[in-house]
Amino acid sequence: MANSPHPTQAAEAAHLDAALERFRDDITAEMRAFLAANDADPDLHSFYGAMAYHLGWVDAEFAPTANPPGKLLRPALVLWASELAALATGADDATRAARLHGALPAAVSVELVHNFSLIHDDIEDRDRLRRGRPTVWSIWGEPQAINIGDGMFALARLALLDCGTRGVATPDVLSMARTLDRTCLRLCEGQHRDMGFEASTTVTPQMYLDMIARKTAALMRAACSFGATVGAAGDGGIVQDLAQFGECLGVAFQLRDDLLGIWDAHTSLGKTAAGDLRRRKKSLPVIHALANAPAEARQRLAAIYAAASEPSEDEITWMLEVIGTTSRAWCREQLADLCASARTALAHACAAHAGVADTEAAQALSAVVDYIALAASPAE
Amino acid sequence: MANSPHPTQAAEAAHLDAALERFRDDITAEMRAFLAANDADPDLHSFYGAMAYHLGWVDAEFAPTANPPGKLLRPALVLWASELAALATGADDATRAARLHGALPAAVSVELVHNFSLIHDDIEDRDRLRRGRPTVWSIWGEPQAINIGDGMFALARLALLDCGTRGVATPDVLSMARTLDRTCLRLCEGQHRDMGFEASTTVTPQMYLDMIARKTAALMRAACSFGATVGAAGDGGIVQDLAQFGECLGVAFQLRDDLLGIWDAHTSLGKTAAGDLRRRKKSLPVIHALANAPAEARQRLAAIYAAASEPSEDEITWMLEVIGTTSRAWCREQLADLCASARTALAHACAAHAGVADTEAAQALSAVVDYIALAASPAE
Repeated sequence: MANSPHPTQAAEAAHLDAALERFRDDITAEMRAFLAANDADPDLHSFYGAMAYHLGWVDAEFAPTANPPGKLLRPALVLWASELAALATGADDATRAARLHGALPAAVSVELVHNFSLIHDDIEDRDRLRRGRPTVWSIWGEPQAINIGDGMFALARLALLDCGTRGVATPDVLSMARTLDRTCLRLCEGQHRDMGFEASTTVTPQMYLDMIARKTAALMRAACSFGATVGAAGDGGIVQDLAQFGECLGVAFQLRDDLLGIWDAHTSLGKTAAGDLRRRKKSLPVIHALANAPAEARQRLAAIYAAASEPSEDEITWMLEVIGTTSRAWCREQLADLCASARTALAHACAAHAGVADTEAAQALSAVVDYIALAASPAE
Repeated sequence: MANSPHPTQAAEAAHLDAALERFRDDITAEMRAFLAANDADPDLHSFYGAMAYHLGWVDAEFAPTANPPGKLLRPALVLWASELAALATGADDATRAARLHGALPAAVSVELVHNFSLIHDDIEDRDRLRRGRPTVWSIWGEPQAINIGDGMFALARLALLDCGTRGVATPDVLSMARTLDRTCLRLCEGQHRDMGFEASTTVTPQMYLDMIARKTAALMRAACSFGATVGAAGDGGIVQDLAQFGECLGVAFQLRDDLLGIWDAHTSLGKTAAGDLRRRKKSLPVIHALANAPAEARQRLAAIYAAASEPSEDEITWMLEVIGTTSRAWCREQLADLCASARTALAHACAAHAGVADTEAAQALSAVVDYIALAASPAE
């Protein structure tokens, strides 16, 4: 493995992709049906059409397109967690299937929250492209894009409430609604801090991890918690375990991105080597180096990050060396620790019932951790 | 009355103000306590501080200020509707007080939704001032302002769920949550259409009224519906009546604004005469005239509205005459009809129990209609 990191990464990615394949059509069909049910007034077709555009279903003239679907990882987490929780609480096949059906609106809800936040993030970050296509604001302008994001935010919550029409008990629906709103608030808090960090020179790794817990991990936590709530139908212990799993996974997910953003030229995202350094993104390795490199190096790094012009190739090479020496191992350790915590929480959830750890749902959740954990293993 | 329209308007405004005074401190205290409970992390104080700034409680450095409070009309509608519904369903004094207490989080929720939408509207309309103070985006920039609005949106929904901790039954909380989300979706749909109208030359009065029903009336409808739901504790008939009241009131409220935006120089908003024509706002009188004035006048009006430069004083005078002749009476009639429908719905809600029509709550809701209806009576 040490000599062929990329094939292994590719293998783990293929493994995860195969697992994600299982629910992809169900999730997409549910999302399309939900949006179509709201898109009844021809005078408002451009409102819902822009949402469908963002989701990759239509082009800017609202004609159907065949864009590759997103990974749909978050809604898959909902469904896997639901199946696992149903198994762990001893549900029979029919009950398990019914609960999976009941969890679908929650899966839609989580994916819509994720996408509402992307529509607004793209405006906030002035990003003109997402997944290779012009962003909503760059086509319809900022005012409409802000409002289309707001509409998707409202739809996300309406979707969640639909769980109540699929056999989920009213107190569970209410508790999920509260969790969703708290999650969205955490998400906004994280985004607030993240934007504030750009202008700050005193961000510590702990502050960064706290920001990530809100901005990225809160929604993955909510996804696993929703699935577990519906799947276990009221059994509280497993909800805690899987929520914990989702939170560790979410932070780890971002740390993987941070590591690959500097040290991987072979990701499927088409990133160039040291891409995050070229764009002077304040990811965890940079923040750790700014706090822990030798004094002189800290000053030079801060100066490069504060300079008016982009870093030169020499500066990139120097940064790669300094950050590599000071922070790479530490960041990998953080990622490995988070993956270990995720595995512990997952094992705890599986322990409630014999054989659960060997089921497809448990294996799929495990595959997500494996995929993320690979970024923590030394590639050289 | 025909000879002294402004003193009468002033008298009705004072009458309404006195009615609004009753709940103002309770609503403000509840809102402050709710925000304070979420504003616990010093690192996030600038996030919640910007919300407090928008609400008029602090200055841009988050130091307390003594800005005059907003009218708080929408939360007052919640509380009046709650009291009226409790009375109409025969609740005793203690029950009525408990239900009023239970409705307070819904009042906070409605006011936060209103203010979240203002924060985003100000960005969308590029408005730098609101209530005489710099808007959130003009102080903290658009990216932070979009996100602060999103956060307030999430908070608004969390506030509503707090009704469940004040004795409101779980199914009622869930039904209100769904109503709130549908209302927010309507609000965004209305805003989408409103922004689309600016570039369109084929907007009919009916299209405009449909837009207003979403953008302005939906939230007033929800306010009255929430109050009635909590106040009547499950009695459905009065919820329908008061929701209907709120919707008529909401459309009427905007039509009043539209009439006074052209024909009143004496409002407390500091508007100049024909202000909406100077800003070439496509309010109902203009849209009606564009569709119903003689062909030649329609063309000239459309040309003035499409021109690159602001209208001259001669053009203002001409527009005032054409729109006055073609559309003023018709708009007043629409407003009067809506006020009559609001009164009918209110009377129907009061009819359920003897003496309700004479109570403070019924009188206060009546005072809102009186205040709005005045704009429908010929001032000359």
